[in-house]
Amino acid sequence: MARKIKALLFDVFGTVVDWRSGVIRDVTEIAKAKGAEVDAAVFADAWRADYHPAMDLVRRGELPWAKLDTLHRRTLDRLLVDFGLTGLDESEKRWLNTCWHRLDPWPDAIDGLGRLKQRFVVAAFSNGNVSLLVNMAKRAGIPWDCVFSAELFRHYKPDPEIYQGAVELLSLTPPEVMLVAAHNDDLCAAADQGLATGFVLRAGEMGPYRHDNLKPARDYTLVPADFTELAAMLGVQGGEM
Amino acid sequence: MARKIKALLFDVFGTVVDWRSGVIRDVTEIAKAKGAEVDAAVFADAWRADYHPAMDLVRRGELPWAKLDTLHRRTLDRLLVDFGLTGLDESEKRWLNTCWHRLDPWPDAIDGLGRLKQRFVVAAFSNGNVSLLVNMAKRAGIPWDCVFSAELFRHYKPDPEIYQGAVELLSLTPPEVMLVAAHNDDLCAAADQGLATGFVLRAGEMGPYRHDNLKPARDYTLVPADFTELAAMLGVQGGEM
Repeated sequence: MARKIKALLFDVFGTVVDWRSGVIRDVTEIAKAKGAEVDAAVFADAWRADYHPAMDLVRRGELPWAKLDTLHRRTLDRLLVDFGLTGLDESEKRWLNTCWHRLDPWPDAIDGLGRLKQRFVVAAFSNGNVSLLVNMAKRAGIPWDCVFSAELFRHYKPDPEIYQGAVELLSLTPPEVMLVAAHNDDLCAAADQGLATGFVLRAGEMGPYRHDNLKPARDYTLVPADFTELAAMLGVQGGEM
Repeated sequence: MARKIKALLFDVFGTVVDWRSGVIRDVTEIAKAKGAEVDAAVFADAWRADYHPAMDLVRRGELPWAKLDTLHRRTLDRLLVDFGLTGLDESEKRWLNTCWHRLDPWPDAIDGLGRLKQRFVVAAFSNGNVSLLVNMAKRAGIPWDCVFSAELFRHYKPDPEIYQGAVELLSLTPPEVMLVAAHNDDLCAAADQGLATGFVLRAGEMGPYRHDNLKPARDYTLVPADFTELAAMLGVQGGEM
């Protein structure tokens, strides 16, 4: 099946970048600047815990379409109060909210994407808005060929429209496209639409907490250890770099 | 005004790449393979001459939404008959139709975009469909941060929706975005939406024929000689490469 693949879509938060460390870093910085006692890890986990519920409000039509930056800000404004992190002016709040634009890739990600880009279209495929994904890629040097954001389709994952929409924009068929992700819900939704699937374990994504993505929930097309192994499985050797 | 600019949108056909030479090259190749006597330059000009009329059918609602590849193919099927270029099988017709994916950049384009990318978001902004733009960029090494295609908005230029849509996806305001193009109609439509404008003369675009884009039709923000001069005007020096 892997021989047909022409394009690879990559989930971003947790799969390409380590969101938790990046959020903790910037929460720590602003709390220190404000002289506030905040457990930045707990703050980061609370922020992420509202990620799916916030998007679900949009997915169910209870909120009109909103960019992920807007949903993040909605949660942030509540958390600043809950955690007693006060005294931020508007530009500081904006800076903190865009910590999601300043996340660092996992150690294998840039090398693996660079290899895969030689032979395949490599595209971001994320609930993050376009400007978030573009800013992140420029800062971190992520070599996307293109950026497919939920914002283009006005549907958040795992709505089927976003998987179908990306395949259509690539002018390919579903089996010619592989979703690479660290999350079973995303991969199952892609498989339901006929896409190939690559599961990459990111054991550290959730910090010390248990989560549902420590093993494949389904018989995926490929289960590489990381992006470098994915490149090797797809026939792109390091020597071609 | 140029100090506010955060993102640069680039028209592609004629502005970044030399469509006429690329189309002539591939028409020549297939005509030779088929032993047909075809004036490839006349063929290329006839193909391009149907570009605006075909998109206008979509813009006026006389054809349902169609990718540019589909509109190109519609014209190609007619021209193959008109020019007596017969005997192509389906894969050869597809190959010829995708000559628009295999166009070469003007000599200054890749260097200029590389410089501009250091300081600005640089994005394709084209009537070409997403896969056309992605294939072109991979083949030619065009370093886009992202690809804004008419296909994302289901509106061809110069419909206002595509200019507004790109600004919204960038999470910027119109004056923070500059359209760079070799065509007055595109630049006037951008200026009407409040975008900054950069006119680049591409005197050779239409071959030996006169056309309407040999001088600015309006008082544009910048009128650089080429992309390298545009980079210098926007404060990105070659030494920073």
